[in-house]
Amino acid sequence: VGGRAAVIHSPAVEPPVPGRVRAAVLVHLDDVGRDRVAASLDGDEVAWLSGTTWSDELAPATVVFGNPPVEWIRRMPELAWIQLESVGYDAYEEISEELGARGIKVTNLHGQFAHPTAETAVAGILALYRGVDQLVLAGRSRDWISGEVRSGARTLHGATAVVLGKGTIGTQVRRQLEGFGCVVRTFARSGADLHDLTELDTALAAADLVISCLPSGPGTIGLFDSERIGRMQAHTIFANVGRGSVVDEPALAAALSESRLGGAVLDVTMDEPLPVDSPLWDLPRTILTQHTGGGYRDELRDKAERFIANLERFRQREPLHHRVAVAIDRER
Amino acid sequence: VGGRAAVIHSPAVEPPVPGRVRAAVLVHLDDVGRDRVAASLDGDEVAWLSGTTWSDELAPATVVFGNPPVEWIRRMPELAWIQLESVGYDAYEEISEELGARGIKVTNLHGQFAHPTAETAVAGILALYRGVDQLVLAGRSRDWISGEVRSGARTLHGATAVVLGKGTIGTQVRRQLEGFGCVVRTFARSGADLHDLTELDTALAAADLVISCLPSGPGTIGLFDSERIGRMQAHTIFANVGRGSVVDEPALAAALSESRLGGAVLDVTMDEPLPVDSPLWDLPRTILTQHTGGGYRDELRDKAERFIANLERFRQREPLHHRVAVAIDRER
Repeated sequence: VGGRAAVIHSPAVEPPVPGRVRAAVLVHLDDVGRDRVAASLDGDEVAWLSGTTWSDELAPATVVFGNPPVEWIRRMPELAWIQLESVGYDAYEEISEELGARGIKVTNLHGQFAHPTAETAVAGILALYRGVDQLVLAGRSRDWISGEVRSGARTLHGATAVVLGKGTIGTQVRRQLEGFGCVVRTFARSGADLHDLTELDTALAAADLVISCLPSGPGTIGLFDSERIGRMQAHTIFANVGRGSVVDEPALAAALSESRLGGAVLDVTMDEPLPVDSPLWDLPRTILTQHTGGGYRDELRDKAERFIANLERFRQREPLHHRVAVAIDRER
Repeated sequence: VGGRAAVIHSPAVEPPVPGRVRAAVLVHLDDVGRDRVAASLDGDEVAWLSGTTWSDELAPATVVFGNPPVEWIRRMPELAWIQLESVGYDAYEEISEELGARGIKVTNLHGQFAHPTAETAVAGILALYRGVDQLVLAGRSRDWISGEVRSGARTLHGATAVVLGKGTIGTQVRRQLEGFGCVVRTFARSGADLHDLTELDTALAAADLVISCLPSGPGTIGLFDSERIGRMQAHTIFANVGRGSVVDEPALAAALSESRLGGAVLDVTMDEPLPVDSPLWDLPRTILTQHTGGGYRDELRDKAERFIANLERFRQREPLHHRVAVAIDRER
């Protein structure tokens, strides 16, 4: 066995005790969630950070719970695992290679927001179909607009829907729409059911509803460009609960303003929070759900439980749940 | 065969030619519907009435398409069939015996409004669950209220619902809610699945959602009185898409104002149109859908087609579709 040079590690800080972690918690939690996370980290070194400014306390972390800025990751030499507090992980794709080279595992909250996000998409569509948006506004001014709303109302029953995305959100959207008697066709980015863009474009032209649940990425950014938006019918409702970058917003705004598109439900936009001078606020027949799609009363508690469950696996060196597709290739 | 006295008829007007009718059309139709109805009555005597004032032209009618005031029916001695333009027929229950004695058949639009009405109930509930009502209002003032809405949002997934009514509307509400993963229990007024009120009250106390699709009638008027409203939980959403008389409105208003009830979706109220000074306009967490539940773009066309199909049966002396439970007992 002689002849092999000893590898000298020079970590910036002491290596962690086996089974122990040095955790940086960047997530806003409620009291219950915070207590639960604190108990799960009992005996570990923990840095809690509520702000968005770097603190040297974070440097020795082996584990991060939250979505750290990319530059912070570079200041954490011992980092081994990031438990994101989101499903989306596009912010880390640019450093995918670096994460892989450093062996940093990244996990997300896969599926946690599927039901609420799908429900917000359908809530917005149903509101437009049944005139709930108009009725809410009329209620404020005590206007009886029953006849006007009735004659413009539509039924989901029998409507044709195109759902983009076969992940947990798309699956729920499909199930919910089928409960109304919609005819639903789902398109995925890849996999066994891959449909090419020609097939998608044909389906878009026949759809009453189009719901994008797509993440941001090389295959999806700008997918709904001016031409593709133009393929949809003048009565079609377009909903986006994936990522804002999938849509050419000026093109969408023009189609809505010129009545070339029936309406829109936008949970995600390029800029969030939406600036007060954004033209999107004024679009006709459009409901902005302000990225509330994934939200629900117990989301902070559930986030905490997800981290706690994965932390136990991390300590036991078991495979983590919901690794995301950054930093994986290099390791395999 | 001798010995039988001849029966002398003295109708107020000439009896109709066999297979021919004298029709009074009281329904507001669009141009297409009107043309279709006119074509189906080609060769018949037809009185079209758009107003609400009696006209002597109506007197000889054998067939009415629309919902005539009770006193008009008494001025139509030859009347044999009323095709209502509604599902509800409670206005005629008071003269049920008279209709039976005169052999007047009454048919309704059974099922025509099931999908849109159920969709409006679910649209209102989903709007409250996902904060769409707040987001629509915030959109007008360009307020970013994402955090506030997220932390208050709920998911239909896993919610427990009580649906009152096993007719076409209740059936659709159930199907739609099940698509979201709700656990739904249905109560009917009568029939094989009859549940007594004790059982209903137990279910109400455990429900996240209560949806009444009940018509007005002896067994349903005032069903949701102060006590029964009090059985529901402080987070429960109550929806009424049946008839306003089923609910004690002041008791409901008090429960909502005092946060003893989570919210309400009211498609029907005692007074419609709702008077501008009604306290219902101001109720918190309440969406008034202004009796738009049954409405949809093609409803006038579909009403016309229903009448036309039944008219053909009437001419052929075939059983009419969707006879309602007034005027039936006497004839059988």
